[in-house]
Amino acid sequence: MRNILLDLEYDGTDFWGSQIQVRGRTVQGELEKALGQLTQQKTRVLLAGRTDQGVHARGQRANFYTASTLSLTTFVRGLNALLDPDLAVLQAQEVPESFHARFDARRRTYRYTVYNVAIRSPLARRYAWHLSTALDVAAMAAALQMLLGEHDFAAFAASGPDRTGRTTVRRIEQVRCWSEGHWIYFQITANAFLRRMVRNLVGQLVLLGQGRCDEASFRTIWQGLDRSQAGPPAPPQGLCLLRVEYEDIER
Amino acid sequence: MRNILLDLEYDGTDFWGSQIQVRGRTVQGELEKALGQLTQQKTRVLLAGRTDQGVHARGQRANFYTASTLSLTTFVRGLNALLDPDLAVLQAQEVPESFHARFDARRRTYRYTVYNVAIRSPLARRYAWHLSTALDVAAMAAALQMLLGEHDFAAFAASGPDRTGRTTVRRIEQVRCWSEGHWIYFQITANAFLRRMVRNLVGQLVLLGQGRCDEASFRTIWQGLDRSQAGPPAPPQGLCLLRVEYEDIER
Repeated sequence: MRNILLDLEYDGTDFWGSQIQVRGRTVQGELEKALGQLTQQKTRVLLAGRTDQGVHARGQRANFYTASTLSLTTFVRGLNALLDPDLAVLQAQEVPESFHARFDARRRTYRYTVYNVAIRSPLARRYAWHLSTALDVAAMAAALQMLLGEHDFAAFAASGPDRTGRTTVRRIEQVRCWSEGHWIYFQITANAFLRRMVRNLVGQLVLLGQGRCDEASFRTIWQGLDRSQAGPPAPPQGLCLLRVEYEDIER
Repeated sequence: MRNILLDLEYDGTDFWGSQIQVRGRTVQGELEKALGQLTQQKTRVLLAGRTDQGVHARGQRANFYTASTLSLTTFVRGLNALLDPDLAVLQAQEVPESFHARFDARRRTYRYTVYNVAIRSPLARRYAWHLSTALDVAAMAAALQMLLGEHDFAAFAASGPDRTGRTTVRRIEQVRCWSEGHWIYFQITANAFLRRMVRNLVGQLVLLGQGRCDEASFRTIWQGLDRSQAGPPAPPQGLCLLRVEYEDIER
């Protein structure tokens, strides 16, 4: 069987997330449907990272096994012709049969975008979180910097049923928080992320940037490992999965 | 009566254009409805420029007369609370009673955005025209430069019934065509524009950038003043009204 890796871009606004579900339109569901039409074979797609409802991606990746002999170019063109305008395949490449888009991913990078000015923007609203009071970017950047390295991020995991036995330790490798005009960006690279970790982190960083939490409390909340002590998550539309990286695969 | 000038931003995707119509949601219609709710008085809104269905604006302007004593801040906040997320009031100011947003406008600036790379982009699709074959930006910039000054632009007017007696002469004051990565921008400032002029111009410039028309034919089409000789208009989602300027009003 051939194993093919796809690079994907999508506007998450009208998806019920990336992973297939019983009801609701999903990235995986749309891809599997289009691959079924193209190859005339039932095909399962393995996504590198899970994105929640409303979260976007510029560099999501996914692999699938196929007996089809279609060329890579035909896969890209054919899928893009079949998929709706809010989902596109940017690239396709052959990978070894043992390759798994999720298990083999070594690094993921997310960017969160805030639009920080008094009045909301109709043209920014789909891809940014509007906050009207001025945020302290330097304070947020300093707090973000603290998170570098391998730590337990249970305080920023999704709330919900406890998943006994699963580690909540992750390794954050790069962080950056900066502003350009009215825009503020948070960019985080880690080996992997807990579900809703970036949105929970940004939610708490924004409380800090608004002066509603200081760096000591930020550290206490984080090190307390208790999700219920942290603030509400940032909304999904500001989040975008920028990149998923592998060791042995060239982009 | 007070006369109030508003600065507006909108995402044109879900509007049937700016001007009120018998049916369909319009920028003017939504503003008049919100002003009616806020002031409890029937209020007419005068827009500076007409934008067609699907065209966006970052700097549209409009004035209205009112007997209301609400403060300018209350107008901005109240309207933004009543308007849908795709339309916002950025600023409000008092202007002399004789001021008219359309008749007094001295200069309008439009920007057209092209996304020029092989594969379509789900995240760019609402605000750019995707063209997959590489365009010659220098050739398009040179042709655009020719249009500077006062000329008859009948060749780039909207097709449709002839409007006898109306001049098709306009004065183009500034032009710029440049690329940034995969993006190509066309920016044009003129005293006024004919209906659909920017989209028709960009449509013809793109034919030139694709090598399907040379500079001499571009000039012949333009100087022939015959709309039927020019190519199809560029699609609306790439167009944005950036600015409307007045002589005596400070922004």
